[in-house]
Formats: sequence, structure tokens, C-alpha cells
Amino acid sequence: MTPPDAAQIDAAVAAQRDLASTLFDKLRQDGHDDPGVTRDPYGPGEQRAHTTIAEAAERLGLSIERDAAGNLYMTRPSRDRTARRVVIGSHLDSVPHGGNFDGAAGVVAGLVALAALARLDRTPACDIIVIGIRAEESIWFQVSYIGSRGALGTLPDGALDVRRIDTGRTLAEHIAECGGDPDALRAGQRFLDPQTLRAYLELHIEQAPSLVEAGRAVAICTGIPGNFRYPDARIEGSHDHVGLPRRFRRDAAMAGAEFAMAIDRLWEDHEARGVPMAATLGRFHTDPAAHGMTIVPGAFHFSLDVRAYDDAVLAELDRAVDAIIAGIEQRRGVVFHRGAKARAAVGAVDPAIRAALTEAADALGIPTLALGSPASHDAAAFAACGVPMGMIFVRNANGSHNPREAMTLDDFLAGTAVLTSWLAKVLC
Amino acid sequence: MTPPDAAQIDAAVAAQRDLASTLFDKLRQDGHDDPGVTRDPYGPGEQRAHTTIAEAAERLGLSIERDAAGNLYMTRPSRDRTARRVVIGSHLDSVPHGGNFDGAAGVVAGLVALAALARLDRTPACDIIVIGIRAEESIWFQVSYIGSRGALGTLPDGALDVRRIDTGRTLAEHIAECGGDPDALRAGQRFLDPQTLRAYLELHIEQAPSLVEAGRAVAICTGIPGNFRYPDARIEGSHDHVGLPRRFRRDAAMAGAEFAMAIDRLWEDHEARGVPMAATLGRFHTDPAAHGMTIVPGAFHFSLDVRAYDDAVLAELDRAVDAIIAGIEQRRGVVFHRGAKARAAVGAVDPAIRAALTEAADALGIPTLALGSPASHDAAAFAACGVPMGMIFVRNANGSHNPREAMTLDDFLAGTAVLTSWLAKVLC
Repeated sequence: MTPPDAAQIDAAVAAQRDLASTLFDKLRQDGHDDPGVTRDPYGPGEQRAHTTIAEAAERLGLSIERDAAGNLYMTRPSRDRTARRVVIGSHLDSVPHGGNFDGAAGVVAGLVALAALARLDRTPACDIIVIGIRAEESIWFQVSYIGSRGALGTLPDGALDVRRIDTGRTLAEHIAECGGDPDALRAGQRFLDPQTLRAYLELHIEQAPSLVEAGRAVAICTGIPGNFRYPDARIEGSHDHVGLPRRFRRDAAMAGAEFAMAIDRLWEDHEARGVPMAATLGRFHTDPAAHGMTIVPGAFHFSLDVRAYDDAVLAELDRAVDAIIAGIEQRRGVVFHRGAKARAAVGAVDPAIRAALTEAADALGIPTLALGSPASHDAAAFAACGVPMGMIFVRNANGSHNPREAMTLDDFLAGTAVLTSWLAKVLC
Repeated sequence: MTPPDAAQIDAAVAAQRDLASTLFDKLRQDGHDDPGVTRDPYGPGEQRAHTTIAEAAERLGLSIERDAAGNLYMTRPSRDRTARRVVIGSHLDSVPHGGNFDGAAGVVAGLVALAALARLDRTPACDIIVIGIRAEESIWFQVSYIGSRGALGTLPDGALDVRRIDTGRTLAEHIAECGGDPDALRAGQRFLDPQTLRAYLELHIEQAPSLVEAGRAVAICTGIPGNFRYPDARIEGSHDHVGLPRRFRRDAAMAGAEFAMAIDRLWEDHEARGVPMAATLGRFHTDPAAHGMTIVPGAFHFSLDVRAYDDAVLAELDRAVDAIIAGIEQRRGVVFHRGAKARAAVGAVDPAIRAALTEAADALGIPTLALGSPASHDAAAFAACGVPMGMIFVRNANGSHNPREAMTLDDFLAGTAVLTSWLAKVLC
């Protein structure tokens, strides 16, 4: 059977407009928490979304399964049930008072794509599983990729014992409350063996305005950034009288300011050379217990997040940060105490998937942008297990993690058409 | 009668070593509040110091008076009681857990000087009043120069109604508790009519290590800085996702860092041109209610204190700060909300007094440094009323406002000899 052509895919996806629209409306209603939506992971908000999606999947004739971590699997059986499978989807939780599309759009896209393939009357060569992932937003448990790493058996030690910041209950308790099996996770059980997976594909709204700026609806992901982080660093100087001459000062806040500007210049330079990265000093503050208008600050606190799309670039940035700190310590008589350091490897996109997605978009007449993901995604957890991974970003105004997320249904369907086309051409 | 020569003054002051030593010991004991001393203004700590000093003055045969603000006046009568008088002294309060010398050294110096003049058997041409000033440290009531402005009738409106930050009681209540008369102050009563004053002289420990650095015991003050202040400024940017590319960011913390570095460069440039100033961003912080490692800071808060010794320099710095802010607002898409602005005029030192003090030190063989006061002092309140003013700084290690203040008795006696010499030569 020849794969469907672009016009057929376009029509099949366009026919699912009502399905998508109805699902987004229902999800918004389920998560309503003025302003915006709250789909709290392993809590009532996320549960309602899982129920809505599972019911829709049943109506589409998909088989439903759930794993020990409570992830939802909705499968369209294939001609060869033993062949390596393809997983498509995203997460169903949100930040508190977030938007309706961050995460959920990728799950709805999975259902729409399978519905479109059914309309085209194609039976895929391998099982296609739409996954509704649990607990991706790290704000709640301060652990990233809980659901996807639970599915893959790569949850870090101790993760089940961390507590949700609002409820104070452990992840294990929350999982059990939602019908999961924390003991099985502790025993290392995994639902998805990476060896059995052919690919993981995720559609997600863009969390920055690059597509808005470029006037395009869809971007093909070139990579998910790795990072290094100092979550809790501080600078030790000397608290002194406001009249102290400059040459005697060991001003920790000025040292912090010099550090920030050096990091900013580093970024500016990389940008000028076309090397994508990002650096953020999210917490950046004098000590509230000791600071005052007439006191030279002797203590300063900051967090640093540096991200890039190439492990070699990250290593070079790491060395540059070291050199910046050494220079400031010497010039300003202060000491940097960096505290714990966290790292995450770059989430590499599979070049063949990226090329095929781009080609599919071209065939559909959808101009795309090649875009490094600004944010982290479950896809990185799959890439870390060696599963070939690709991502599609959909234009979205006003950023994410806020109630003003604004993806249009047309843009969503364009991105979903690219996903469907890939499934149809590669698998059918 | 010819004035006493340097050797006579030296000997007369040196003979008061035990008086000074005993008084400092007693004051330290009175204020003991481990670590350091606490002489809380209009509270038990300051009261005990006033009692100790008044008793010592009585033993020296000085007449004792107190005004409506509770300031202590210890007078050596002169040949002409109607002549314009000279006031010497400093404040007797301290910061919490401060050192023993900040303030008190100037009062002890006054008593030592009068004792030395008595030993030299000189009766001055005008009354010399040693003043023990109340409540100079603004940390307690957040109002500066309470005692000296109370004496001069220049307390600002509303000052009597402010509350001490620890007790919560008003300044008026505190003054009444210590035997003062807040109603008289409210009615504008003043004990010191500036027209009747010939000069105000204050000896104070240096609050920076310039004398330690220079290896000299005594400095003659060239001026008390004026300032302008933004006690509570903030920068408004946009809270965004940590992955947002640089060109889209409106990072309030980076704007704050750029502002701090520009202020620091401004200071560096002035220093290179030999124009003394100081700038301090004492509070400098992201919003603790909104900041986080993975959020681009959309809000930043700071205080700014800029001080200089020339009102024209201050005006120029004020314009420079405006220009810096305008540039950053444009470059970084943020808005500075400066909040209230406070100003204090430069406290000018009388050139004749400064010259005479320097000459007196030269005659005594005491090498001096010409030094802009790093800090504010009661002397500025006298200068603001048109009273000719001069200050002597005494070497002191480890800064002030902490228990590690370290003035030696030898250095104290050297500074006091300069003061005594001025009194002897000018008045006797």
C-alpha cells in the first residue's frame, strides 16, 4: 500500500478538528482554577485530565493500559505486535494556574493522529502508543520527568520519598492514591523497555515566541538543552559601614552584579557566534536578614542555570564560569561558595527523525523553523535511554506556565498533520 | 597670658590618661551586652552612660544641665559668660551590640580636654560646653541626628511620633521616660541658639581603615558627605520561562546588575579623578515571593545611597544616575520605579577651624591625614544651622558599629591633645 499523500493526510487531520476542539474544551473545564488551569500531578487536577483522555481513547477504539507510575497508554494495534513500537504523546499535568496547552496538546495530538490514520484506513506496521505522562512539571515535587522516568525505570534514587510542596505528602503516597504501585517502582519495574521502542515523538507548544516572531506555525526541534546548575550558591564578602571607601570594600552584591554581567556577556558572545545557549540567575539577592540601605552587603545569594544544545559547549561554558568566578574573587576580595552542582545531559534529537519531520512538513506545504527547544521535555528522558527522539513545536503566544498561553487550533492541526504524516509515511 | 606650648598641652592631656581609661572601662561595663555594648537611645543603655558621664563632670567641677531632648551639657564657665560659646562632644548612644568608642570617645575627649585646661590653670574667654548627645544612631528610630537637632530646634516634622523599632514606643514617650519634655520640643523650644555658638568640635573614631592604612593616629576632617538616596526602588521586567531566548527577555535582575556595575564604574572614574564619593546598593534582590531557579526574574528591588563632599558633585552624580537608568530601561525593556528620594546636604567643615586643627597637630608633632568623613555625624546638624564646625578622627581598626572597634588610648590622647590645643590657643 502506498503511503497517503499530503492532501489525504491534510484532509484526514482536518476532519478531527471537532475532536481536538472538544477535548481541549473538556480539559480546560476539568482543570479550571481561576486564573488558568491547574492539573496537579497525582492529584485531582491531573486525574480528571487522565479520565477525559482515557474516555476519548476508548471512543476511538484504542486499548487502554496504565503502569505502576500511573501513566496512561492508549494503543492502536499493528500488523506486527512484536515489532518495536512507536510512542507519541506528552504530559497531562500543568503548573499551578498554568495554561491549557502545555503538555496536553501533545496527548491530544496523539489521539488526533491515530484517529486520522484510522480514517485513512491504515494499519501501522508496529504498535503506536499514545502516552499520557504523569508529573512532568518539576515545580510540584522538585524532581524532573517523574512520569516518563517512571515508565522507563530510570527514576533517581529517593524520588519516591520527596514531598509535593503544597500537600507535604510523598510521591509514593500520591502515586498510590492515584491507583499506581510505588512498591513496584521501587523494585525497578518498568513498563517501557527502551529496546522495544523504535521512536518517541512529542508535539508541544513553543514556550518562547520564536515562531510568533518568524510568522510560522510549526518548528522541528533540533535538540533539548542540557544544563549545569548551581541551585544554591552564595558569595561571601564583608558587611561594612556605608561610608567605607571603595578600596576597602568586599561587597558581595557588587561581586554578584559583576558575575551576572559577565555571564550576560558570555551569552551575548555565543549568540553573536551563532551558538545557542541560555543563562539565568533566577534567584539573585542580598541576605534579607542582614541587608540594609546603609550597610555594604557582605553576603549575596544566587542560583545559576546554564543550558546549551551541545555537551562540548556546556563543558566550555562550565570552564568559563570557573574563570569568571576566579577573576571576581581576586578583584573584589570575596569568596564564591557554589554549593551543590546539578547537571543534565543534552537531549539529542535523532537526525533521521528530524529530517523526516521536516520533509513531511515541506510536503504538506507547512514552512517550518529549525529550533532548539528552549525548555526541557519528557522527550529528553527517552533520549537518555537511547530511544530515537523527535519533537514538533507549535506556535504559541504569551509563553507557557501562565493562563495566557495562546495556541490556535489551526496551528495545532498543522503540527499534528506533520506528526501524522511521519507516522503514515514511516509506519504504514 | 600666652597660650600654653605644645609640651605643656601634651603633658596636661597625658596626665588625664587614668580619667580616660576609667571612663571607658565604666562605659563598657554600663553598656555590656554580649557581644559588645548596647547603649539604646532613650533607654537603659544610654541612660547609664549619661549618668556615668554626668558624675565624672561633677567631679571635674563642671556645671550640669539637661535640655528638653535629654541632652547633657557640662560647662566650664569663662571670663565672659555672654560671649559666643564653643560646644565640643559627640553622642552617647550606640548601635545594638556595637563598640565602646563610636560616639562616647568624643564625649570623654571633651571632659579630658576641660580637665587638661584646668590643670593648665587657664580660664577660657568663652564658655566651653561638653555635650553628651542623645540618639545619633538612626537604626533605632530611623531618624538621624535626633539629639543634636533636638538641641538646635531643627527636628523634622513628625519625628516625635516615630517608634523605636524594638520597643514600638514613640520617640516622645521615650524622651518623657528619660526625663525630657517632648511637649516643649513640639512647641519649638531649643537649648542651643546657633547665633550664640562660636564653634562645634567633635572627636570621633574613624569608621573606615584609612588611618590604619596610612599609619597615622589622627585625621582632620575635610567635610561630612551629603547624599541622595532611593531607599526603596524597584525594577519591573517580565517573569519568564528559563528557556526564553535573550532577545525576548526583560530580565529585571540583569537590569539591576547592569545598574550596579554602572554605579561602580562611576565611582571608579571619580576616584581616578580624585573626587571623593561613595555609592552603596545595600538592599539588592530579586522578589522572594516570585523568584526561582527556573524563572527569569521579572522584579528586582534595591536601595541606593550616593554620598559626596560637594553639593555640585552630588548634583552631577544625580544626573549621571538618571542617564544610567534611562539607558538600561531602553536596552533591557524594563522600567525603574525609584520610589521616594531622600537628600541630605553636605556638612561643610569651617576652613579656619580645619586649618587651626592641622596647625595644632603639627605643633604637637602629630602627623595628620586630611580625610573626608566616611560617615554622617552630629557635626552636620550644627553645620546645617550655620555653626562653624570641625572634626577630629582617631585611628580605629575593624570599623565601627561592631564589638571589634579598636582605638588605642595613645591614639585617643593624641586626638584629644589636638582638640585641647585648639581650645587653648583659640580661647585662652
